[in-house]
Amino acid sequence: MMVEGNAHPETESPSIVPGRTGIVGLGLIGGSFARALAKGGREVYAYDPNEEITSFAAIETTTGVLTDEIIGTCELIVLACYPEACVAWLREHANLVNSGAIVIDTGGVKRSICEPCFEIAREFGVTFIGCHPMAGTQFSGYAHSRANMFEGAPMVVCPAPEVRGVECLSLVDRLEGLLAPCGFDKFTVTTPERHDRVIAYTSQLAHVVSNAYVKSPTLGLRDGFSAGSYKDLTRVARLNPTMWCELFLDDADNLANEIGIIITELSKYKDALEKRDASRLTDLLAEGDRIKRADLAKEEEV
Amino acid sequence: MMVEGNAHPETESPSIVPGRTGIVGLGLIGGSFARALAKGGREVYAYDPNEEITSFAAIETTTGVLTDEIIGTCELIVLACYPEACVAWLREHANLVNSGAIVIDTGGVKRSICEPCFEIAREFGVTFIGCHPMAGTQFSGYAHSRANMFEGAPMVVCPAPEVRGVECLSLVDRLEGLLAPCGFDKFTVTTPERHDRVIAYTSQLAHVVSNAYVKSPTLGLRDGFSAGSYKDLTRVARLNPTMWCELFLDDADNLANEIGIIITELSKYKDALEKRDASRLTDLLAEGDRIKRADLAKEEEV
Repeated sequence: MMVEGNAHPETESPSIVPGRTGIVGLGLIGGSFARALAKGGREVYAYDPNEEITSFAAIETTTGVLTDEIIGTCELIVLACYPEACVAWLREHANLVNSGAIVIDTGGVKRSICEPCFEIAREFGVTFIGCHPMAGTQFSGYAHSRANMFEGAPMVVCPAPEVRGVECLSLVDRLEGLLAPCGFDKFTVTTPERHDRVIAYTSQLAHVVSNAYVKSPTLGLRDGFSAGSYKDLTRVARLNPTMWCELFLDDADNLANEIGIIITELSKYKDALEKRDASRLTDLLAEGDRIKRADLAKEEEV
Repeated sequence: MMVEGNAHPETESPSIVPGRTGIVGLGLIGGSFARALAKGGREVYAYDPNEEITSFAAIETTTGVLTDEIIGTCELIVLACYPEACVAWLREHANLVNSGAIVIDTGGVKRSICEPCFEIAREFGVTFIGCHPMAGTQFSGYAHSRANMFEGAPMVVCPAPEVRGVECLSLVDRLEGLLAPCGFDKFTVTTPERHDRVIAYTSQLAHVVSNAYVKSPTLGLRDGFSAGSYKDLTRVARLNPTMWCELFLDDADNLANEIGIIITELSKYKDALEKRDASRLTDLLAEGDRIKRADLAKEEEV
């Protein structure tokens, strides 16, 4: 509510500073957003529960600390923390967010973040878009963040279900503009449900399989045997167990289903091997080869 | 047997031409040996059942065609064909191989090749060493071969069990010298049994898991979701089904065992997810992360 003649009008109803960005959580992803946007000339205010990180980032890349006073002046707020922490932050700070701002998260699951955040956003009249930048490394933490982390990476976005048609297009356009310095390749609009189903397969299953792969006792014998395929299969075996556990549990139905599918498929090869069934084994291999070739061909078309 | 005054003594008992190499099979691996050794100044004679390939290679990289007359003059013979074809070649040509030469294969399994080849080699008084160059790509065929294929790659070698101690060291030294232009990183001596156990894990299992990974129906939905982990996990899903089927069947006991191990491990994650057991799931992930870190640390030490 505007109060004329108020001594501190800016604290009552602060104005947006165009392009000003607030970042909550300075890990690998939040740090990379901070670096990319700061490099692109944006004013970046960041907050991390670890004060040392916030101060370090303030010296290195950001304009200052994201305080309650600054929140209302941000045009974009990036929540780059664990799923539960994103929801908690928005619940506690939605009243400070400018109605003209866009709030996004960057989490690896969308249903558990978007559903409560859409609710809170409606209540406080702010705009929330669930986002998942398809980038990262097997390392975590601010020290590994870098300005070019998102260059050429796809960005998946989930606007609230009531945002449709032209309104949706123009909202996503505006977000693309705000994130332009990050260099994302393509923005894909989807629903939280579809996102979580696909991500259980493309990313979460990969981490589970990789993490399981290294558990064979044969690993200890592999001296002098390093091979590219082993390295590729196990690259993401190294992971942040706490973060991935939260992501996996938020998508437990889809991920358990995908693990079940790959177990069923693997059992077919095992069975063919045990029966020394060359024709069945060749068919199984040829089928996978065919699917992968079609997948690669589709990628080249895009 | 030497016959004095024979009109064609060279056909009776030909002398080795130092460094001269015969290559049987001009696929990805044979072609790469041909290119690397020719580039290193060696005389390379090659044979492929596909005459077009042999002629093409003769123009491009090799000195000529590996005929029966040339076999006895080679110091090194590289059998770069499928396992059964390697054994068949040696059985048919061992009588032509010079007793001072070394014959190697390059196959991905060692028990099924080494056991019969050691037998044949003993019978004809020639030297056979089972070899597995730890290099390759997801592509096959001469067209994808290249001179630098083996640069920095490990080479695993299996001399006959009766070759021991100093004799073994000096034999491997000689082979290292003959293959010097290939630029292998390290030669590791092992037994065919240990080789096959380890390779079932480091290479064969990777191909099976990758090939099975692409079979989820969710693959069709992944548009806009490409992620590094999916790409790494499925790189080797594309493979030569006929070749891998033969390799897998020659190592069926070990490979079926490894598939069984990863199925058991994957089931543990699935179970923890279905029970929403955060503590068990975190433990499983932390265990894999710890093993992978230790594995990486060991690699850095080497």
